[in-house]
Amino acid sequence: MKLNIGIIGLGLMGGSFAKAVKKYSIATEVYGYARNEKTKKEIEELNLVDQLVDIKTMKEKCDLIVLAIPVDNIISMLPEFLDIKDKTTIMDLGSTKEFIIKSVPPKIRKNFIAAHPMTGTEKSGPKAAIDNLYEGKTVVLCNLEENENQHVNRAFKVFQEIGMRIVAMDADEHDIHACYMSHLPHAISYSLANTVMGHEDPKSIIALAAGGFKDMSRIAKSSPDMWTDIFKQNRKNLLASIDLFENHMKKVREMIETEDYSSLKEWMKKANTLHEIL
Amino acid sequence: MKLNIGIIGLGLMGGSFAKAVKKYSIATEVYGYARNEKTKKEIEELNLVDQLVDIKTMKEKCDLIVLAIPVDNIISMLPEFLDIKDKTTIMDLGSTKEFIIKSVPPKIRKNFIAAHPMTGTEKSGPKAAIDNLYEGKTVVLCNLEENENQHVNRAFKVFQEIGMRIVAMDADEHDIHACYMSHLPHAISYSLANTVMGHEDPKSIIALAAGGFKDMSRIAKSSPDMWTDIFKQNRKNLLASIDLFENHMKKVREMIETEDYSSLKEWMKKANTLHEIL
Repeated sequence: MKLNIGIIGLGLMGGSFAKAVKKYSIATEVYGYARNEKTKKEIEELNLVDQLVDIKTMKEKCDLIVLAIPVDNIISMLPEFLDIKDKTTIMDLGSTKEFIIKSVPPKIRKNFIAAHPMTGTEKSGPKAAIDNLYEGKTVVLCNLEENENQHVNRAFKVFQEIGMRIVAMDADEHDIHACYMSHLPHAISYSLANTVMGHEDPKSIIALAAGGFKDMSRIAKSSPDMWTDIFKQNRKNLLASIDLFENHMKKVREMIETEDYSSLKEWMKKANTLHEIL
Repeated sequence: MKLNIGIIGLGLMGGSFAKAVKKYSIATEVYGYARNEKTKKEIEELNLVDQLVDIKTMKEKCDLIVLAIPVDNIISMLPEFLDIKDKTTIMDLGSTKEFIIKSVPPKIRKNFIAAHPMTGTEKSGPKAAIDNLYEGKTVVLCNLEENENQHVNRAFKVFQEIGMRIVAMDADEHDIHACYMSHLPHAISYSLANTVMGHEDPKSIIALAAGGFKDMSRIAKSSPDMWTDIFKQNRKNLLASIDLFENHMKKVREMIETEDYSSLKEWMKKANTLHEIL
């Protein structure tokens, strides 16, 4: 299978996707689209795509068009693809799925593969692109029953060839799972980072940072533009998961306050059971 | 400098310390002490020390005795060392410092080096010991003005030779910094793990775990015995830091609830400034 692949947005996700399809020789040509002139220059310098083109050219040339942009931008760009060919596959890589799928125009719903590769780093922009971001990771594909077979098969083949494990799931279920595994952890990490940065002397505190804090604060470096949109689109699930998390924070605070150390130890042991799964 | 070194407790910290002093040829002999028969067997099988001995023998033979046990056990063992020789250095590796230092009997205060190596993993027990746990990491030494020079110099030399960066600090300041960098992150990680494990189907959720959740939940696998004691000994600072963290969780919840996305983005940008330091 050799495809002409178009990638809209060549940051961490899109740029790494371009590198992956090149590495595994999946593409005949890789076309890229970016709006910003500075970004275009970076993409060219990094040689991420064969050619930067406009949307019209991309729609003419490509078998597969990938939207690797923030989730709100995915939605606002959808009308641009109303006139794609029947055989053209369009796919998004956004972190939320329910709202995006609801926004896909019915005319191109059968072409539109809703994908969420469960991978990333805290970095963003074309320079963050790496050729092994997707290898060995999981991609969730949502509501595939609404797609035409040729597009599903194409998506499967591409993700398999770049080394991903495919999981099919309903969009509403995906949004809950992604909330626990990614969106809630981001809200917590941003809060922890702001707690420490709010101290009168964060530098001297952070001088003692070891594995624990480094791991817990890494994703607090993630892009605010991207993550504001994700929080917005998964607002309902995020609020519910914050409430559940907050119950546990209240509980640990209370056990420490009242010096109920035997309950504290039991509660920690329950958290340890995660070890059996992960 | 070649020393006879005694290590009390040969889990992650003590076992790794034994491996490090061997690796860097600092010790003439490494003596170990453990209470539990199963642990003793593991220590012997792993060949962590030259000889397992009783406390009396350790006090006779060793130039340096290291307490690498949970922080409450450090305090309860202190009276055992009232009769150490003037030239014997005793040192603890506990994660809290104020309470331990206050508990050191005045008679041996000059011998007692209060150390906190800012390193660790989520694992525990002799099998968790690794020979490079300390390399390139920071060790905090507290209230050194209360120590005799020969003991301070000995501690400096040992930590330097195993590749550590030494920071001197008051115990009360240490306990605040360690709270932000380690104790609060542990409370949060345990809460996140319990939030997810409380879901009706944690397995299918965790099947989608990627870097974000893995990093944020890793330290929730840490030993409840060890961490209950740490939370107890640093209770006051931990409660204060939970309150500051909770203010941020309330804030992010409120911004999402009221859909104040411009404030949300600004708040995320503030968290990003961590990037400039770490």
